[in-house]
Amino acid sequence: MSSYDLQKIPTRAPDNLDKEEIKQQTKELIDELEELQNKLFAEDKWSLLVILQGMDASGKDGAVREVFSAVNPQGVKVKSFKVPTERELAHDFLWRVHQHTPRRGLIQIFNRSHYEDVLVTRVLGLTDDATANKRFALINSFEQLLQERGTQIIKFYLHISQEEQKERFHDRLNNPRKHWKYNPNDLKTAEDWPLYRKYYGEVFENCGPQIPWTIVPADQNWYKEYLVAKTIVETLRSLDMKYPGLETVE
Amino acid sequence: MSSYDLQKIPTRAPDNLDKEEIKQQTKELIDELEELQNKLFAEDKWSLLVILQGMDASGKDGAVREVFSAVNPQGVKVKSFKVPTERELAHDFLWRVHQHTPRRGLIQIFNRSHYEDVLVTRVLGLTDDATANKRFALINSFEQLLQERGTQIIKFYLHISQEEQKERFHDRLNNPRKHWKYNPNDLKTAEDWPLYRKYYGEVFENCGPQIPWTIVPADQNWYKEYLVAKTIVETLRSLDMKYPGLETVE
Repeated sequence: MSSYDLQKIPTRAPDNLDKEEIKQQTKELIDELEELQNKLFAEDKWSLLVILQGMDASGKDGAVREVFSAVNPQGVKVKSFKVPTERELAHDFLWRVHQHTPRRGLIQIFNRSHYEDVLVTRVLGLTDDATANKRFALINSFEQLLQERGTQIIKFYLHISQEEQKERFHDRLNNPRKHWKYNPNDLKTAEDWPLYRKYYGEVFENCGPQIPWTIVPADQNWYKEYLVAKTIVETLRSLDMKYPGLETVE
Repeated sequence: MSSYDLQKIPTRAPDNLDKEEIKQQTKELIDELEELQNKLFAEDKWSLLVILQGMDASGKDGAVREVFSAVNPQGVKVKSFKVPTERELAHDFLWRVHQHTPRRGLIQIFNRSHYEDVLVTRVLGLTDDATANKRFALINSFEQLLQERGTQIIKFYLHISQEEQKERFHDRLNNPRKHWKYNPNDLKTAEDWPLYRKYYGEVFENCGPQIPWTIVPADQNWYKEYLVAKTIVETLRSLDMKYPGLETVE
């Protein structure tokens, strides 16, 4: 049994936070991110991989849109991993993911990722426990491979409550601009929450400490955006990047 | 120190072998390979990855040409890994290789491979011992990943003597049809034989037992082709493949 019990981890910001103040801080973080991405590109030494996981309607798309709003789109790529194609299924589960890992100087965002192969596939009964355990080790080794080459990896779990999810699904049904996001399977997924909680717990435990997960209370978008921006900015700051000097001919 | 001492492993066929008889057997193996590849494709369950390593002029190209001469080219792909491009170097060392791993039903041949990143790069002083040791573990994990998905991996080291290599270089210089293969660095590489022997020994030892290396005495092409064909055919035979039956509507 996993020691992570998502039901005990809050999905909302602490009560004493000042929403307007946090929003102001987020704005500053987003501006700083623009500058940091510029440095990342110029120095051409490190790269950044941001992995976004979370239940349906947990706000993954929104997080990308808001947090990277100021960043030069040339320096950031987003890849969404959907149900694998026939061709992708004919290869190992990391094949399609590896191709989209960032080259030096770039930021890559994974909207869902290789973790789906130890999450949704388990819920659907396509991956048994033994396979999942093997995959945990293969994932760790894969992430080490990226790290060894200078790729910083940040893993987010956007943590919403089941109530908030229900509300957002309802919203999708009632807002014509959001209809396209509604999927009849959404309601079915809701039944699977206990399984998802269990399997996410195992992911946090097995694919954890070296490259940790950041569990983001995500019921309120303003707080989610703040935490995502803060974590990314702090990681990039810690690289102590420098603009290369002018090369001079001696 | 490695327990593999390539200098003690023969580079020629045993004296008592009948060359003509072996050549006849190779022909039969090559015919059987055509049939096995057909089954591999039809069953669409397994795939095969053949890794060819060896010193310059050890006959990697020739092995591919002869052994796969009867196989449907649609079922076999060959990828030669040369000096990495700027783009490839901006990623981890397995990135370019992973993209070319075979999908179900296919045979993929690597002419050189990810092993160059723990061989030539060490000889050139680009990879230190600590990095090489990390890479051995990453390579093993990568190959397990492929295996888990049903990819059979066969690793060949084409083992020629330094004398035979010298002769073949000489040949390239004196045969206009082979000039294009001659590279002034060939002679330089010859000086590095002791280092290559040492680093190959470490590869056999560290990336060994689970997915073993086949060391092929390669001074004589007829014997090399026989052993390569035999190893591949025996591996495919062991999969006990079947043509799928006709699906019937009930």
